[in-house]
Amino acid sequence: MPALNLIDPALNRLLDHFLDEDLGRGDLTAVAVGEHYGGAYWIAKQPGVFCGGPFIKLLFKRLDDEVQIRQLVADGESFISGQRLLEIEGPARILVAGERTALNISMRLSGVSTATARLVRELVGTNIQLVDTRKTTPGIRLLEKYAVRCGGGINHRFGLDDAAMLKENHIAWSGGITKAVKAVRAAAPWTSRVIVEAESLDQAEEAVRVGADAVLLDEFSPDHLEIVVPKLRELALVSIEAGGSGKIILEASGVDPMAIKKYASTGVDLISTSSPITRSPWLDFSMRFEKNH
Amino acid sequence: MPALNLIDPALNRLLDHFLDEDLGRGDLTAVAVGEHYGGAYWIAKQPGVFCGGPFIKLLFKRLDDEVQIRQLVADGESFISGQRLLEIEGPARILVAGERTALNISMRLSGVSTATARLVRELVGTNIQLVDTRKTTPGIRLLEKYAVRCGGGINHRFGLDDAAMLKENHIAWSGGITKAVKAVRAAAPWTSRVIVEAESLDQAEEAVRVGADAVLLDEFSPDHLEIVVPKLRELALVSIEAGGSGKIILEASGVDPMAIKKYASTGVDLISTSSPITRSPWLDFSMRFEKNH
Amino acid sequence: MPALNLIDPALNRLLDHFLDEDLGRGDLTAVAVGEHYGGAYWIAKQPGVFCGGPFIKLLFKRLDDEVQIRQLVADGESFISGQRLLEIEGPARILVAGERTALNISMRLSGVSTATARLVRELVGTNIQLVDTRKTTPGIRLLEKYAVRCGGGINHRFGLDDAAMLKENHIAWSGGITKAVKAVRAAAPWTSRVIVEAESLDQAEEAVRVGADAVLLDEFSPDHLEIVVPKLRELALVSIEAGGSGKIILEASGVDPMAIKKYASTGVDLISTSSPITRSPWLDFSMRFEKNH
Amino acid sequence: MPALNLIDPALNRLLDHFLDEDLGRGDLTAVAVGEHYGGAYWIAKQPGVFCGGPFIKLLFKRLDDEVQIRQLVADGESFISGQRLLEIEGPARILVAGERTALNISMRLSGVSTATARLVRELVGTNIQLVDTRKTTPGIRLLEKYAVRCGGGINHRFGLDDAAMLKENHIAWSGGITKAVKAVRAAAPWTSRVIVEAESLDQAEEAVRVGADAVLLDEFSPDHLEIVVPKLRELALVSIEAGGSGKIILEASGVDPMAIKKYASTGVDLISTSSPITRSPWLDFSMRFEKNH
Amino acid sequence: MPALNLIDPALNRLLDHFLDEDLGRGDLTAVAVGEHYGGAYWIAKQPGVFCGGPFIKLLFKRLDDEVQIRQLVADGESFISGQRLLEIEGPARILVAGERTALNISMRLSGVSTATARLVRELVGTNIQLVDTRKTTPGIRLLEKYAVRCGGGINHRFGLDDAAMLKENHIAWSGGITKAVKAVRAAAPWTSRVIVEAESLDQAEEAVRVGADAVLLDEFSPDHLEIVVPKLRELALVSIEAGGSGKIILEASGVDPMAIKKYASTGVDLISTSSPITRSPWLDFSMRFEKNH
Amino acid sequence: MPALNLIDPALNRLLDHFLDEDLGRGDLTAVAVGEHYGGAYWIAKQPGVFCGGPFIKLLFKRLDDEVQIRQLVADGESFISGQRLLEIEGPARILVAGERTALNISMRLSGVSTATARLVRELVGTNIQLVDTRKTTPGIRLLEKYAVRCGGGINHRFGLDDAAMLKENHIAWSGGITKAVKAVRAAAPWTSRVIVEAESLDQAEEAVRVGADAVLLDEFSPDHLEIVVPKLRELALVSIEAGGSGKIILEASGVDPMAIKKYASTGVDLISTSSPITRSPWLDFSMRFEKNH
Repeated sequence: MPALNLIDPALNRLLDHFLDEDLGRGDLTAVAVGEHYGGAYWIAKQPGVFCGGPFIKLLFKRLDDEVQIRQLVADGESFISGQRLLEIEGPARILVAGERTALNISMRLSGVSTATARLVRELVGTNIQLVDTRKTTPGIRLLEKYAVRCGGGINHRFGLDDAAMLKENHIAWSGGITKAVKAVRAAAPWTSRVIVEAESLDQAEEAVRVGADAVLLDEFSPDHLEIVVPKLRELALVSIEAGGSGKIILEASGVDPMAIKKYASTGVDLISTSSPITRSPWLDFSMRFEKNH
Repeated sequence: MPALNLIDPALNRLLDHFLDEDLGRGDLTAVAVGEHYGGAYWIAKQPGVFCGGPFIKLLFKRLDDEVQIRQLVADGESFISGQRLLEIEGPARILVAGERTALNISMRLSGVSTATARLVRELVGTNIQLVDTRKTTPGIRLLEKYAVRCGGGINHRFGLDDAAMLKENHIAWSGGITKAVKAVRAAAPWTSRVIVEAESLDQAEEAVRVGADAVLLDEFSPDHLEIVVPKLRELALVSIEAGGSGKIILEASGVDPMAIKKYASTGVDLISTSSPITRSPWLDFSMRFEKNH
Repeated sequence: MPALNLIDPALNRLLDHFLDEDLGRGDLTAVAVGEHYGGAYWIAKQPGVFCGGPFIKLLFKRLDDEVQIRQLVADGESFISGQRLLEIEGPARILVAGERTALNISMRLSGVSTATARLVRELVGTNIQLVDTRKTTPGIRLLEKYAVRCGGGINHRFGLDDAAMLKENHIAWSGGITKAVKAVRAAAPWTSRVIVEAESLDQAEEAVRVGADAVLLDEFSPDHLEIVVPKLRELALVSIEAGGSGKIILEASGVDPMAIKKYASTGVDLISTSSPITRSPWLDFSMRFEKNH
Repeated sequence: MPALNLIDPALNRLLDHFLDEDLGRGDLTAVAVGEHYGGAYWIAKQPGVFCGGPFIKLLFKRLDDEVQIRQLVADGESFISGQRLLEIEGPARILVAGERTALNISMRLSGVSTATARLVRELVGTNIQLVDTRKTTPGIRLLEKYAVRCGGGINHRFGLDDAAMLKENHIAWSGGITKAVKAVRAAAPWTSRVIVEAESLDQAEEAVRVGADAVLLDEFSPDHLEIVVPKLRELALVSIEAGGSGKIILEASGVDPMAIKKYASTGVDLISTSSPITRSPWLDFSMRFEKNH
Repeated sequence: MPALNLIDPALNRLLDHFLDEDLGRGDLTAVAVGEHYGGAYWIAKQPGVFCGGPFIKLLFKRLDDEVQIRQLVADGESFISGQRLLEIEGPARILVAGERTALNISMRLSGVSTATARLVRELVGTNIQLVDTRKTTPGIRLLEKYAVRCGGGINHRFGLDDAAMLKENHIAWSGGITKAVKAVRAAAPWTSRVIVEAESLDQAEEAVRVGADAVLLDEFSPDHLEIVVPKLRELALVSIEAGGSGKIILEASGVDPMAIKKYASTGVDLISTSSPITRSPWLDFSMRFEKNH
Repeated sequence: MPALNLIDPALNRLLDHFLDEDLGRGDLTAVAVGEHYGGAYWIAKQPGVFCGGPFIKLLFKRLDDEVQIRQLVADGESFISGQRLLEIEGPARILVAGERTALNISMRLSGVSTATARLVRELVGTNIQLVDTRKTTPGIRLLEKYAVRCGGGINHRFGLDDAAMLKENHIAWSGGITKAVKAVRAAAPWTSRVIVEAESLDQAEEAVRVGADAVLLDEFSPDHLEIVVPKLRELALVSIEAGGSGKIILEASGVDPMAIKKYASTGVDLISTSSPITRSPWLDFSMRFEKNH
């Protein structure tokens, strides 16, 4: 399980929002459930990589401190179809009240983890890492980016404040790459990396010379990258005295996820793709209640 | 465009949460954008059914009252690949700050609308309506259910408070369908419908006799439904004096979306499916800034 | 005690708002109370039907987990003047800090329950149920509607999203009852009931024919109702094939609460009245601290 | 109209909560109202003193900036049965969405103002002022206390932080009136008044001697007060050098509102009563839509 | 330790805001800390008066219930350089996550307490109390005013709603001191004190005659005060029958904190100064982790 | 004026919190101000560097859209004693309601800007930049860090999520610098810089070799730094092939702000200090109302 910070009050407020959404003015069926105490388990209906355990534990804790959850497959671990994923025990009306929201979280996130893992597998044996983008479902970016890590990817920036990425329009408005990088460097915290999105080798070279931390090579073919990457690495080194990057991080974007293997020998550091978030189906889990409770 | 209520303060709070998520401590590239005033338009990269316009307008209004948005394709309307979807004009740093969040909303929701429309088309000429479920992305159910309506579907309940659906476990805990329906009827607002999930004809008949408003027929084959549906409709009528349903709403669930056409002659009122929400890829739109601003 | 959902985070936020309101920047008398540990009990100063126990427990839990509350009269139970209602034990400064808010909740809600029970008693032996309206004190509808249930009434819809009630103006704006019902049916979740407020038999009949789920008969005299009700029930049945209601729910509104008994033989399903909420005085309870703590 | 502060963001949050409560997931009837633009007016169904105009204006402003409201009877002014109270104009779906909440606010608050005015009239010609208490409906104290001012009363403290009132238990726990007053004086802001609730002349005198700002004389008969009040005023003056009160504010509490006139000659400064808040029925207003819009 | 109310939900929300501010999207170093359990203590790097213990305890409780804190120097107590202030034990990632926020709270507040104590010492042996003002760091007034109490000062009003202070402009707009005092008295809760800021003896006398509770003598020299104070006290007494103050509270403001001792014999009740809040440096504490955990 | 993002909804919520804090239940003196319309200006009582204009504009906009503010000295500009800083015009009760909060914001922040500018001046002619730390007043870090930029400094990370700084304890818990850096790199977004706090040359060299982005040299003397800095820069270059830093950012911390000039020739990139935030007095501004309004 990748490291996860579950201590921030903001996460509790988000989980409360999820619960409010489903509970509204209260579960009308609670009266049919009564004061029973129940047990249940989750079953996978297809193979995948699990994600969401810590959120589910926290979610039920918001409803009732007493609910016990035993996670049988850790976040980031693979499971097969039919495998038992977690067990849960507590007051029946709490189990019923949290069931749908908990499943929705985990079925969605496990879909992302599973799709990520599939792409990561294509890059095994290379030094290239798979990274996500800012194309995430509004409101749950923190959760979806955690799911990408569970699938073996690593995260790109979390927001517009997290690193400065200069795109076509920023460059046009500020009068060129050199000016744009300098303007951002002067205003941003020194801890913020500056990234330039380049559409040509010329642009990439200008970025390296002015000391960008990273260059995003957008829609460069694998063949083109094999030529461009070593050139940029060398330029970064030789221009270091003149303010150049020294060590440059190179990211390929606009990559067709189906063809990711072709990029294995390009020498880039990162391949970014939104597909595990924008194109992955949910996994299907089923929550089964145990009769003898 | 289906009717939409955009006046609730809760929606503004949700949009603020989306913005907070992406803006964090502020857009680091704002300094590169400066005080320019800009224009941009959105282009579709594939055909589909549009959704999200009203949210996008409200989102930019949260950032700056002056932003002007002209929606060229209404919510619920189809568009072709390459079609211009909307135009936007305002301070450049506002356009840049809201761009990703606005696109994420609309690309996700249009994916749902488009997938819904595809299924709805299969049912044209029948009296069957396509309905969604409570399997929705945590936090944005209101938006996703609106997208289903834009695709021509109609909505199932929005939460546990919105109608009472009695499933296997409720029935087990309360001692049978008859007891469960009566317990809920006695406690719920009279405006709440009571729905029973039935796994057999016997269960469905018990539900009709005790006056359930609707029966969800789970994983009944099309052939089985053709027999069961008229039986239940008749039972509903003849049992009306004894407290029976009179008019019963029949919903088929557990339907494979690929095989939906086979259900066209079953006579059910509703087919529910989560697939437009749980299995649809995002559509791809691109926001292009205009040079001459 | 009627079923109550106390698990929703929204309820905790509401109780926090109540506490903020009374505590402001902190209880100035806390210093006079010191570190004492105290006990207290509540005494009724007149007879009534109790309401509010679960909210009071939750309220004190927000202040301090250690406070112990023993409810001696359950929500929905009757008590006599002088009866002990509940006992409470905990740090004195917590008891003092929560005292007024807790009493305000329960004295107000018990006033509503008691007034409701008085009206419900008039309808004993009939099949008519007493229901509330949306005339509730802004901000505490959830609590007041719970109090109505504690008094033996049942709830009408909780908000504008909970069922669609078409009144004079909706009908005028959409061009008649038939058009209005059809427009709402097409857009609302299928789980939402559609109710028509009728001011004449003609209107009621149009509503039944177009398949409204319920008709609200506003300011019909008891005599008039005895004629109208059977007509509408029959019409509902005979029009079922043509899209009519089948089983129609009939609600009398605009009823003088003093004269409610006259409606006992009208055959309506529901009598709605706001009077337990808009016209009931608070009950008077007194919290007495015990000396020997 | 009494002075009112409508600028605090907290008031906007409270109005949003009222709207959320009624709108839930959105007004289902909006579709029947369509894009009409409408006008409406409010009619009083009985005489009274109006209250709530500023809240209603702010409430509709939260929904839509364009709604126009003309208040025909100012807050604090009397009106007769049948009088037009206010006129409102705007998009029909906004009028319908805010109607119930706006009426609930004003019908409740005008009930409080009207009941207050009735009691205040009994004290005309005296120097005694009618004051409220902390027995207020949870969540809307700010509004109800404003209604008391509209009825001609003045407000007691708004919360436990607003002035220190020492009651029986505070006195017992801290070891007597003198100790309790001194403890609070040492810790409270110097701007906070210290009030002692006295059940006997002895207690009242101890409070005056130790320099309390006010004494609440609980359940003293009018005859008893006529003797006690001058004694305490004199004691306050003669004890000033020794730390006594100088000028003492005397409040009679536990007064039967029916018998308030008997207190007119007691010489107290204040009579406190919760009855306009805990015992007043709502007034009845009706909102009528105008046909020709 | 001065009395402190830690029970208000508003305080928890404020602490959550502090944590959100530092934690953002989560502590990136948590992964380096792992599952270790740790201990740490705080050391003072200079002498001072401690403040903030209760907030720190509550802050860590928001992060994790299990963290144990032993406060070795109570709030309001002095400590010497090198003294151990508190000990803390718990999961290492929690200690690290809360460390900076907890230190920031206490180093800031102890700076205020220490500066306050220095001024309070100058007034020992007099009846004059040192009070703060509304010049406080936006957002943390409640905490800074508590720190003033920990240093031996007492608090002035907490906000514009807490007492009415009439300054130059209020007086000009309402047409003079007498009119201003009367206008406020008529509208404010009777529990609110009315204070007049006077720039001359004439103004002060007008305030006393119309019955102000307190007069703020702004920038009067110590010599001038020695003459003015007894005059005002006498006037207050002789004017009591005519509505005058009786007992008047006299506050000197605009006092140079360096010269505070010169005011010791002026006979005023209060000297107000913002300097412990606006001019005090933070104290420096260091949190040291213990190796053997 | 440095670039500032004023569009995030989070900033509006923070300003609301500031206003709530001072307004509480409403300004008691509003009644004395009446319906006057007023003008006022701010005067500096000493020289300095201004900060806070955009926040003040936004603050008054929360209270009333009509208030007009003309900022005469831009954020980051110097002013002399007696200079007019800004002019404001609007409803008098709004000016009075926002006055104290607006002044508190600007007097505090201008204190920070002024103190920063003083230190920045010491480094003119060097390539060293002055940076802040995470020692900021709880709740207003965003504002204080903006003030540092207005004074000519640049910002360090904004929170624990913004860059990973590995200190003594992280290093101890994870088993050394190399392990700590690798653990964080594997989990953090690739955009996050990794910084190591070094207490010796050995530690610094280990950090450089493992590819840290920056090394914080804590309490190194200027003489020591002049030796250490070139060594680390060279090591960074020669170790680049083996995974080393290439270009290393070197920060001196633990610097006595009085002796900052001695560091001018050390060759470090950054000097970090908390002193403009933890040790700067507020500036003093006065708001004067104009008589002829």
